[in-house]
Amino acid sequence: MKKNLGAKLMIYPTPLLVVSTYDKAGNPNAMTAAWGGICCSSPPCVAISLRKATYTYDSLIEGNAFTINIPSENYVKEADYFGIASGKLEDKFTKTGLTPIKSEFVNAPYISEFPINIECKIIQVTELGLHTQFIGEVMNVKIDDTIQENQPIIEQIKPLIFAPDGRNYYSIGEQVAEAFSVGKEIG
Amino acid sequence: MKKNLGAKLMIYPTPLLVVSTYDKAGNPNAMTAAWGGICCSSPPCVAISLRKATYTYDSLIEGNAFTINIPSENYVKEADYFGIASGKLEDKFTKTGLTPIKSEFVNAPYISEFPINIECKIIQVTELGLHTQFIGEVMNVKIDDTIQENQPIIEQIKPLIFAPDGRNYYSIGEQVAEAFSVGKEIG
Repeated sequence: MKKNLGAKLMIYPTPLLVVSTYDKAGNPNAMTAAWGGICCSSPPCVAISLRKATYTYDSLIEGNAFTINIPSENYVKEADYFGIASGKLEDKFTKTGLTPIKSEFVNAPYISEFPINIECKIIQVTELGLHTQFIGEVMNVKIDDTIQENQPIIEQIKPLIFAPDGRNYYSIGEQVAEAFSVGKEIG
Repeated sequence: MKKNLGAKLMIYPTPLLVVSTYDKAGNPNAMTAAWGGICCSSPPCVAISLRKATYTYDSLIEGNAFTINIPSENYVKEADYFGIASGKLEDKFTKTGLTPIKSEFVNAPYISEFPINIECKIIQVTELGLHTQFIGEVMNVKIDDTIQENQPIIEQIKPLIFAPDGRNYYSIGEQVAEAFSVGKEIG
């Protein structure tokens, strides 16, 4: 049997993405977003949503570019901090000790210590309500050169999952099955 | 050190969402999508992207509604099958033995056996390239009545993660930290 919860947000899993931009003065900033994901394979595009009240919102509108940086489990503290503090009040890179480096393909910094950095050019902005959705075309992806591309990348980078209901972070578990394969047993 | 991979899709994790609709003849259908997620808190909205070539695409355009159904790990086979087969050629509910039930709030079926069902009304459609993004406003969420809402829901439903690079499914791991909390140790 089912029960109705009303109009809630219950998608599992949601990713933990750290969005980085330069502000008007050219200073690097970063904030955490869990409302986002892939939205097109070709051209490769990603979507992130954030509130107008954030410091990053203005930087996105002005700079037209961002990076998505995927933290490993061992940077959970920094990733959470990026979601708590505001770039209006604090220099988050100085506080965390993490290193912003200018991207090669877009005008936004990437976080050197995070294993995956996705350089995006904004191609669409949609006001939805409390959140604004930014769609970025992926211009380049950087990964740590220690990552073996012929081995499962997810197991090497150990990304975090955000669970909205309890506001907790989780790790990735075990491989369950091969996609586009296990379902062939049906039909 | 970093290496450049070019314009790739490398978001981790991506969710495993089963989108269900009625086709023109009123028959229930379902397909799996990993390009999607939450995109606004208020009104609560979710985004899913799918290719025009899919049978579900026409149903979305015509019916203006869909459900997102989140499978548990023990339905990995069915969830994968929903992503392999086409509703043009097969009745996926008959093949899987799963049960489509008419939603209360939108004109789309939900999958009874999956623990979370999100009833959505389409409020925006954006052609991005290979994929079209549909934004749905959440009208209602149904969950199994065995789920304890005061305990972590993610641990009870055991959702799946899709890893695009190796095309594998993963389980959810352990709780790593509390969000909006662990980061307070910085600054």
